[in-house]
Amino acid sequence: MRANNVKRIWRKGDAVVNGWCSIPSSFSAEVLAHQGFDSVTVDLQHGLVHYDTAVPMLQAISTTNATPLCRVPWLEEGIIMKMLDAGVYGVICPMINTREDAERLVSSCRYPPKGYRSYGPARASMYGGADYAVKANNTVLAIGMIETEAGLANLDDILQVKGLDSIYVGPSDLGLALGGIPTLDQTDPKVVKQILHIAKRCKKFGVKAGIHCASSAYAKKMIKSGYDLVTLSADARILGVAAAAMVKEMR
Amino acid sequence: MRANNVKRIWRKGDAVVNGWCSIPSSFSAEVLAHQGFDSVTVDLQHGLVHYDTAVPMLQAISTTNATPLCRVPWLEEGIIMKMLDAGVYGVICPMINTREDAERLVSSCRYPPKGYRSYGPARASMYGGADYAVKANNTVLAIGMIETEAGLANLDDILQVKGLDSIYVGPSDLGLALGGIPTLDQTDPKVVKQILHIAKRCKKFGVKAGIHCASSAYAKKMIKSGYDLVTLSADARILGVAAAAMVKEMR
Amino acid sequence: MRANNVKRIWRKGDAVVNGWCSIPSSFSAEVLAHQGFDSVTVDLQHGLVHYDTAVPMLQAISTTNATPLCRVPWLEEGIIMKMLDAGVYGVICPMINTREDAERLVSSCRYPPKGYRSYGPARASMYGGADYAVKANNTVLAIGMIETEAGLANLDDILQVKGLDSIYVGPSDLGLALGGIPTLDQTDPKVVKQILHIAKRCKKFGVKAGIHCASSAYAKKMIKSGYDLVTLSADARILGVAAAAMVKEMR
Amino acid sequence: MRANNVKRIWRKGDAVVNGWCSIPSSFSAEVLAHQGFDSVTVDLQHGLVHYDTAVPMLQAISTTNATPLCRVPWLEEGIIMKMLDAGVYGVICPMINTREDAERLVSSCRYPPKGYRSYGPARASMYGGADYAVKANNTVLAIGMIETEAGLANLDDILQVKGLDSIYVGPSDLGLALGGIPTLDQTDPKVVKQILHIAKRCKKFGVKAGIHCASSAYAKKMIKSGYDLVTLSADARILGVAAAAMVKEMR
Amino acid sequence: MRANNVKRIWRKGDAVVNGWCSIPSSFSAEVLAHQGFDSVTVDLQHGLVHYDTAVPMLQAISTTNATPLCRVPWLEEGIIMKMLDAGVYGVICPMINTREDAERLVSSCRYPPKGYRSYGPARASMYGGADYAVKANNTVLAIGMIETEAGLANLDDILQVKGLDSIYVGPSDLGLALGGIPTLDQTDPKVVKQILHIAKRCKKFGVKAGIHCASSAYAKKMIKSGYDLVTLSADARILGVAAAAMVKEMR
Amino acid sequence: MRANNVKRIWRKGDAVVNGWCSIPSSFSAEVLAHQGFDSVTVDLQHGLVHYDTAVPMLQAISTTNATPLCRVPWLEEGIIMKMLDAGVYGVICPMINTREDAERLVSSCRYPPKGYRSYGPARASMYGGADYAVKANNTVLAIGMIETEAGLANLDDILQVKGLDSIYVGPSDLGLALGGIPTLDQTDPKVVKQILHIAKRCKKFGVKAGIHCASSAYAKKMIKSGYDLVTLSADARILGVAAAAMVKEMR
Repeated sequence: MRANNVKRIWRKGDAVVNGWCSIPSSFSAEVLAHQGFDSVTVDLQHGLVHYDTAVPMLQAISTTNATPLCRVPWLEEGIIMKMLDAGVYGVICPMINTREDAERLVSSCRYPPKGYRSYGPARASMYGGADYAVKANNTVLAIGMIETEAGLANLDDILQVKGLDSIYVGPSDLGLALGGIPTLDQTDPKVVKQILHIAKRCKKFGVKAGIHCASSAYAKKMIKSGYDLVTLSADARILGVAAAAMVKEMR
Repeated sequence: MRANNVKRIWRKGDAVVNGWCSIPSSFSAEVLAHQGFDSVTVDLQHGLVHYDTAVPMLQAISTTNATPLCRVPWLEEGIIMKMLDAGVYGVICPMINTREDAERLVSSCRYPPKGYRSYGPARASMYGGADYAVKANNTVLAIGMIETEAGLANLDDILQVKGLDSIYVGPSDLGLALGGIPTLDQTDPKVVKQILHIAKRCKKFGVKAGIHCASSAYAKKMIKSGYDLVTLSADARILGVAAAAMVKEMR
Repeated sequence: MRANNVKRIWRKGDAVVNGWCSIPSSFSAEVLAHQGFDSVTVDLQHGLVHYDTAVPMLQAISTTNATPLCRVPWLEEGIIMKMLDAGVYGVICPMINTREDAERLVSSCRYPPKGYRSYGPARASMYGGADYAVKANNTVLAIGMIETEAGLANLDDILQVKGLDSIYVGPSDLGLALGGIPTLDQTDPKVVKQILHIAKRCKKFGVKAGIHCASSAYAKKMIKSGYDLVTLSADARILGVAAAAMVKEMR
Repeated sequence: MRANNVKRIWRKGDAVVNGWCSIPSSFSAEVLAHQGFDSVTVDLQHGLVHYDTAVPMLQAISTTNATPLCRVPWLEEGIIMKMLDAGVYGVICPMINTREDAERLVSSCRYPPKGYRSYGPARASMYGGADYAVKANNTVLAIGMIETEAGLANLDDILQVKGLDSIYVGPSDLGLALGGIPTLDQTDPKVVKQILHIAKRCKKFGVKAGIHCASSAYAKKMIKSGYDLVTLSADARILGVAAAAMVKEMR
Repeated sequence: MRANNVKRIWRKGDAVVNGWCSIPSSFSAEVLAHQGFDSVTVDLQHGLVHYDTAVPMLQAISTTNATPLCRVPWLEEGIIMKMLDAGVYGVICPMINTREDAERLVSSCRYPPKGYRSYGPARASMYGGADYAVKANNTVLAIGMIETEAGLANLDDILQVKGLDSIYVGPSDLGLALGGIPTLDQTDPKVVKQILHIAKRCKKFGVKAGIHCASSAYAKKMIKSGYDLVTLSADARILGVAAAAMVKEMR
Repeated sequence: MRANNVKRIWRKGDAVVNGWCSIPSSFSAEVLAHQGFDSVTVDLQHGLVHYDTAVPMLQAISTTNATPLCRVPWLEEGIIMKMLDAGVYGVICPMINTREDAERLVSSCRYPPKGYRSYGPARASMYGGADYAVKANNTVLAIGMIETEAGLANLDDILQVKGLDSIYVGPSDLGLALGGIPTLDQTDPKVVKQILHIAKRCKKFGVKAGIHCASSAYAKKMIKSGYDLVTLSADARILGVAAAAMVKEMR
């Protein structure tokens, strides 16, 4: 089975640099995937993408060596399993607030007897290879988002769920949850404190930690703080910011 | 933040005239939105539309002053939040049968601490404006449908849920629920009685009342009966009825 | 081979009532095709439709007994033959101004030795039947639009082109060509005069005459004036007009 | 209302031959539906299809006499009812593990008072006919998949749920559930035993039994073993296998 | 009729800052159009866009004040007129090499008697307004590309074609034509010489000059050199360059 | 630059086995491209595919080692250059009947000074590599179809056009042109004679010969007869034939 870059990099003790697609287009996804990211995530939650537009995006990412991941809209089995069958090698799921949430996520991503994922990897076995059935459980990542008060309160419980590979921090929601503002690259001390806390607890339980960043500078800081995966902004945001800067220079 | 026509009209004590899109096309949505409606609803429940076709429809509606709303297929957080991020200013949710249903709907539409909507208004903040994060909770409408026996039985409970802006009546389902027939512009006394009853209870609890109508004549009657929002048929139905009439004249 | 309603009706000496699709949606096309039209035309010229959206529209029309036609954007072989392969039973081509134009249109629609249409009716033979290759030349209609000064000047020449089944009048372009205004249901005497003239010359040469109308009333008048096919408005226009009328009643 | 082939064939005591679409294209669906199947199922679970691509596929199937069915991704009301409104005459639902699951499936497929399906058959009433509202409950099939240990354990309970028309066996998931391998056309005795057992229990409770097969040979065996519906492979698989065989002959 | 920013700015003697869409997505087009450009061009030539994906992009651009333009794939009437009907306010046409080419371009963009554009502004009249028919000829821009040896040789002839509003320079093709390399922001003296020459001849004949640039710096230089419209890179390129820079900082 | 399998195989003196896509779906294209073909052609002429659906198909093919080719609808520069920019490594063009046709095809596929292809390989340079500009002229194939009486008459003239890499025979059109029937795998002696004649003339002028076949058996025969590239049927046909055979076994 084709290897999962994320797992491979983590085994070496390095950090993953992840790209993020919110534009529903296979061409922008292909452009992004060609820029050197280790993995590229198609965002079905806050991105303007749902399943029918996500499929060609995954195909486009598959023309490169970047490992395809996705974020699903919610903890709903239907879409989680559809995305796995479409070939993603990892599912980021929002709002994992309890041990039960985490267990449900993990079970959705694993074939029996480890979980209750249904079998039919229509595109995944073309992407992954003929041994997908045997190796998928050890290749596909289950990644839960910690971004609410409840998630923080139940963090240790969640981290002990067997098969949960990683935590992913959504700094905007975390900010709102802590009475701060919804933004990436948080500097609010009470939010930063929790961000650092999460990384430490992850390390303690042998779970990898990922976080969404707006800038490379902040991302590098996060890696130094113990994060194992950093996302660099998102396609639409990168495009908007860079284009606005060019226009501004003209005025 | 760009104002919500529906709220603005309601503040003046007037009734909203709402258009309805069930054709999965951004062009028909744009045509409809140009005909003078105060708001236009993209129907993801009974319309032939799901998320991937809804996004360009919302963009098309945004070329006009009509406020974009949607009806979601079911009380499922994934699609509710996706549609809000895509820029709708109100969510009509079918089958609100209990206080718990209504609370879940409202919470899905509100950022913390008022609810558990996740933050990431990718298109909504382009449509609404830079202050979307701060003002969305007061701009976006949570609208629950009363259309079952249970919904009628629990009406007062539902109307007391904090943050529920409006009730929307689906006369077809209400007809079925009451042992009548599934049709708009109901004349069956037992259904009409409940339609009037709902409007009264809404008024009592300061919740707005909306209803789906087939004709302008019935819609005007509903406004006189206390309804605050009336939908005029739906694009596919308007097209079908008008085209059939033209053909009939030829034969 | 499945019969062509238009030819069948013409053989009986009757007039065809044609529907018109400009909304790029298979659902609106299906709705329109269910309203009793003899034929339904997908408009790739002024409609918001090109080939990739036209294919599912033709499939939707094929769920009914209405015969599928199309209007192509221009006298270009690529799109004419693509639409025939996709299953249309007739091609309306704009701006036929000379005998050469008409010959090129006819040749594009006929297999050798009658023309130079290329063989490969991928969907057409599913729609038409296994004998498509043998019968297509006698089933598919070549319809040229007369809508310019040149077209009027060369009318008799054009009408004598072997294999041209019908003329189609675009009253808006004809109006502009004659120094009038671009509108359907023309009442400008100099335009009306030419409209009547075209029908007479068609009759003289045994070519059928069609015309685009906005209303059933005008369409009936055109049939009385010798037209063999009348189009009733277009989906987007029917929808817009009917919806605007409903909104107007509310204000 | 247009008849349901599946019900019609079952009434005669015969077995249904079902086609299976996993390619998200209305053209491949139309091609498949023209090959003589009694019914054709659009697979929204393991197929690369979700709602927005499924609609034109259903339209394409409607150009033939094959009855359209679907498999939904999961037991979620939103998508079940959307597919019924889009015109499917039967819903295959994965992972029916308990009596409660089966009841929820059936209720989602039936209008009150038999269930809680919401009314608005936008396309279904065009496909089915004007009496859809009255006859849908007796026409539309609710089909639950037995494919887990729990499903097997609760089989008799599930089969006694009123309104459940049929069971559908997913041999791959069943294989995994029983500690075997995920494959169609199972020969593993412990899996075969359960496949035969399911057919027998279905017969006992008057519920029809369906099963997914890879080959005609196995499908015929299943009919002899008491199965009432057999699916023959799936479009993508048929294409891949046949193309690979042709290439192999060349090397 | 809604004004054309490009004409308005040119009347004031200022230069237009133009954005460029090559990603076939209405969301990326909307994002780009929100960044302050005066106009935004949908590129149907080298962009990954053809008509069916261009329509929703134009709708998305119409949610902002940026004036929509397009570049067509070739001097072909079919697509030129389709794009005008879809609402673009200007057509950039590649490879205008002779006076005849320029005349054909202009005629395709103008209603009679000034040209032979066919009437049917299905979306354009919604975007432009009810007086579109009367004012379109004075609002819509015909822009020819000079990018070949022949185009340079015939430059003065081309510039004297009545109704040609502007020239647009494609520096890559111009580079190739002059034996240089295909790149934007040319520094090769023999190419730069021609770029400056074109601007001068344009000024002489009262025709506006536009040019495609990769950077704001070069664009500013071009304005100083007499160019009236500058394009700033293209969406896919902006995204790719910015994302690659972010990744590079991480390694 | 990524190598062109077709050229590489031809250099070795071997024959290319080519797959053929007429289903407008990136998933079916990906499935086909995984079956071991040397090249896969997206058919924009008789396939149900135009540009907007072709792009994701090319991306899907790019996930494999199969070299992507296309057939364009007609000898029209717009679509030829768009497909090259989208990344095809060869263009098959129908109805090459004269030396002028062949020259126009070749010129459309080559950058100056060898032709007049316009520069802007938006996706092609991602697929091909950073040196695309320099190497494309030697990598991209120009392939003309001989399928008419005129084409046969002018064969030697056509074969001497510099830069024409290959001839492709369309047996159905050739059959019609010769008064036979439109079918693949021709056995009609007068057609077979010409098929063999073409291969010989190609050899004589150092041009490669390709032909469309329905079966592997015929394809092998064609290779023995001197053909350098054979196409094996087409996706829709393979699917239809194989599915029909399976259904037939059941009845």
